[in-house]
Amino acid sequence: MASSGLKGSISQEARALVPSTQNNLHPSSQFQSSPFLSARGNMLCGLQGPVQEGATDYNKDKYDEDKNPDGIISLDISENKLCFDLMSKRLTQSDMHDIEPPLLQYPDWKGHMFVREEVACFLTYYCKAPAPLNAENVVVVNGCGSLFSALASVLCDPGDAVLIATPFYGGIKQSIFLYSNVKMVYVHLDSKISDTTSRPFQLTVPKLETALLKAKSEGTIVKALFLINPQNPLGDIYSLTEMKEFLEFAKRHELHVVVDEIYMLSVCEDSEMFRSILSIEQLPDPMRTHVMWGISKDFAVSGIRFGTLYSQNQDVCKGMASLCYLHGVCGTTQYKMAQLLRDRDWIDQVFLRANHARLREAKAYLVEELEALGVPFLNRSAGLYLWIDFRKYLQTSTFEEEVKLWRRFLDNKVFLLYGKTFECCEPGWFRIIFADKIHRLQLGMQRIRKVLEAIEGEMAAKGRSQLDQAEPDGKADSIYISSHQA
Amino acid sequence: MASSGLKGSISQEARALVPSTQNNLHPSSQFQSSPFLSARGNMLCGLQGPVQEGATDYNKDKYDEDKNPDGIISLDISENKLCFDLMSKRLTQSDMHDIEPPLLQYPDWKGHMFVREEVACFLTYYCKAPAPLNAENVVVVNGCGSLFSALASVLCDPGDAVLIATPFYGGIKQSIFLYSNVKMVYVHLDSKISDTTSRPFQLTVPKLETALLKAKSEGTIVKALFLINPQNPLGDIYSLTEMKEFLEFAKRHELHVVVDEIYMLSVCEDSEMFRSILSIEQLPDPMRTHVMWGISKDFAVSGIRFGTLYSQNQDVCKGMASLCYLHGVCGTTQYKMAQLLRDRDWIDQVFLRANHARLREAKAYLVEELEALGVPFLNRSAGLYLWIDFRKYLQTSTFEEEVKLWRRFLDNKVFLLYGKTFECCEPGWFRIIFADKIHRLQLGMQRIRKVLEAIEGEMAAKGRSQLDQAEPDGKADSIYISSHQA
Repeated sequence: MASSGLKGSISQEARALVPSTQNNLHPSSQFQSSPFLSARGNMLCGLQGPVQEGATDYNKDKYDEDKNPDGIISLDISENKLCFDLMSKRLTQSDMHDIEPPLLQYPDWKGHMFVREEVACFLTYYCKAPAPLNAENVVVVNGCGSLFSALASVLCDPGDAVLIATPFYGGIKQSIFLYSNVKMVYVHLDSKISDTTSRPFQLTVPKLETALLKAKSEGTIVKALFLINPQNPLGDIYSLTEMKEFLEFAKRHELHVVVDEIYMLSVCEDSEMFRSILSIEQLPDPMRTHVMWGISKDFAVSGIRFGTLYSQNQDVCKGMASLCYLHGVCGTTQYKMAQLLRDRDWIDQVFLRANHARLREAKAYLVEELEALGVPFLNRSAGLYLWIDFRKYLQTSTFEEEVKLWRRFLDNKVFLLYGKTFECCEPGWFRIIFADKIHRLQLGMQRIRKVLEAIEGEMAAKGRSQLDQAEPDGKADSIYISSHQA
Repeated sequence: MASSGLKGSISQEARALVPSTQNNLHPSSQFQSSPFLSARGNMLCGLQGPVQEGATDYNKDKYDEDKNPDGIISLDISENKLCFDLMSKRLTQSDMHDIEPPLLQYPDWKGHMFVREEVACFLTYYCKAPAPLNAENVVVVNGCGSLFSALASVLCDPGDAVLIATPFYGGIKQSIFLYSNVKMVYVHLDSKISDTTSRPFQLTVPKLETALLKAKSEGTIVKALFLINPQNPLGDIYSLTEMKEFLEFAKRHELHVVVDEIYMLSVCEDSEMFRSILSIEQLPDPMRTHVMWGISKDFAVSGIRFGTLYSQNQDVCKGMASLCYLHGVCGTTQYKMAQLLRDRDWIDQVFLRANHARLREAKAYLVEELEALGVPFLNRSAGLYLWIDFRKYLQTSTFEEEVKLWRRFLDNKVFLLYGKTFECCEPGWFRIIFADKIHRLQLGMQRIRKVLEAIEGEMAAKGRSQLDQAEPDGKADSIYISSHQA
């Protein structure tokens, strides 16, 4: 299993991701510098790569069933598009609309106490906390990207680094770099498995140790370990045993641990598998352990900017508070979120039941299609996406070839994300979002199939047997489904 | 007239302001550093001064007519508390509650196009633009504090500075420093007037020139001029002639100009006096001219985080876009704001009419009280506050004495802001908010009167004639009302 990124904000996930080849973000070579901006401003403008260009194409030519049926299908952004009906209905019920004067006044920038109390109750229940969580330890801002940004400033000095396993949701890299100038030290995971008990992209303490020691020996100051559970893009779930090992590792090295649990309720199969670290009776290092959650993924409302931090460390909360006014949430939105989070009957009986059934159905469709295509992928329980192995469709195993394949998909009007945007160290992996309506998934998969069949034809014409040669190493994993080619 | 700060976020205005004595923010000497935070995190935690301590007191002991009538009256925060009834009613009308799926999805981080279009229309009309403003030039984020933060990064490199006249709303200083590490060069204005045509705290081009040249000679790189019009805390309005002079000055020195017009509709007397720079036919340097506005002051809803930037410079907009996902506004809030801004009949016939009448009435009450007390103040047309001259109540003309007076007010359960929080160079000036219900104003003024009378008694007992000696120099100004003492 691999660690990885994910997070609250995810249009930027796809749309502003930077295909950097190093730890830091680097301007695109194509960017023309502006005489009106600072060097920093130009750097910000120049943070563009193929994905950003793809997003520009997409925005000009979005698929619409009626108005633009030949437009680009977006399977790149980790959004749950399956529950707008349920959420629109719930958010427009009459209990949502009260406006008392305090909602229209400046709030406590860490969030109104009433909503922090509801968040604490909500997390206590859904994270199975052994004792009621404390609202004083909750910070509410406009999304988890903002939490990453503020935490990076509070925990790290400019130039410091955090440890993270790849592949991970690359938006985190931006969130901690743009304002806070914090870098990343990667623990590169790959799909090879060493024995029957290991998994592709599995994160282990020895791998963490190795990466940390190497970074230290190079003079890098590492302040924190970021863990994302459930993982994005792998869909993996860390067991509580694994999490405790990671937390102990961090304690040994006096690293803060930031655990992003934004997909905690987006576990559509075996939902009991996921265990929040807030369920741990005795955290190894509670003053250095900070947990994130947000509304966007689990409630299928990424347009509602609402991310939460839980930390017992009041110094951290106080430092965050200094920055929170730059990440404030509208008072009336805070009220709606409090009403939503307290409505446990609706969440359990209506929303989660329907959401999980819809996610399962959509995922089953994608799984079936991939199996029919003979394309390997990781088949995990969590998230809104599958992590897919297109390595055999690359002419050579390079990131240039990966981008080429991605462009062919885009030219055929389907927008995915390629592995380099997640800092994956093996070229050829892609993430496909399945949390979308079946007719869009179908069309997207038809277009993907077309590209893959064309490549197979080209390879056959060249008389090459790359398809077979490129069979991935990881197929022995029982969960990692590898199919033979036509 | 003086330039000055103001801004969208203003709980931080009062509550997180730092009484720094230099251009940068400095940690409070009382702050105990935390072993868990970075040096930067500790700096963030330590940014506290008397005002922050006062805010802590206030939060523990807020005035409530029924529950805590002896609690602290807050006249420190620039909030309009006179229109909750109107705004609650408007924001809960049925047209506000529609939720189409795009509102629940990741937006364009510069704001949904539909709301940027409404902002462009709104500004075209209320700023009397000579031609329709373009939605492409609009950026929407969660408050003007966020705009200042992002603009600082886009226009300035770390350590660069912006030029600003004092006194000004000090929250701007934080907004550009916390993440972006941009400093300020002050143009210190005072209350002295040189002839019958000049005003107390008047900003002029020669004063700008002098401060800029001095900063340059000291090696400071100045990238921008910040202007706030209408001004906070003075309440002054710059004439279009003055504004054009400032813009020409900036053009000569290739400075960007950021004009904060957040109080543009909070002109309760002579509302025709204010002219937005968006009304100028031909801006001297349009690519370096950027205008801010926000919902919080003019619509009496500081809890709704919604700030707008208008800039013709697409490089600037693009740079902003890279940071905007850290300052995003909930989609449903964007929709409500669009509905509000387009409802011109209601704005003109209902809201502004009532709001201005209420502001005039509240202001008239405060003016009358101050005149009865014999306390001089600037009597201007704009804003939610008066700038008040308590200099004669200081034992000596020092900032220590200013804080002492402020503490006496606070000990008597009324919370004001003192001049140093606005970087005023003359000790003894205070800002009092009048945009509050009369019964709270009355109680606040009773408590202020009690403090002032006690000081007068003490001074009389000491047989000193400081009260008369301290009569301010500026009383010749016809608008600056100076009254004799009892």
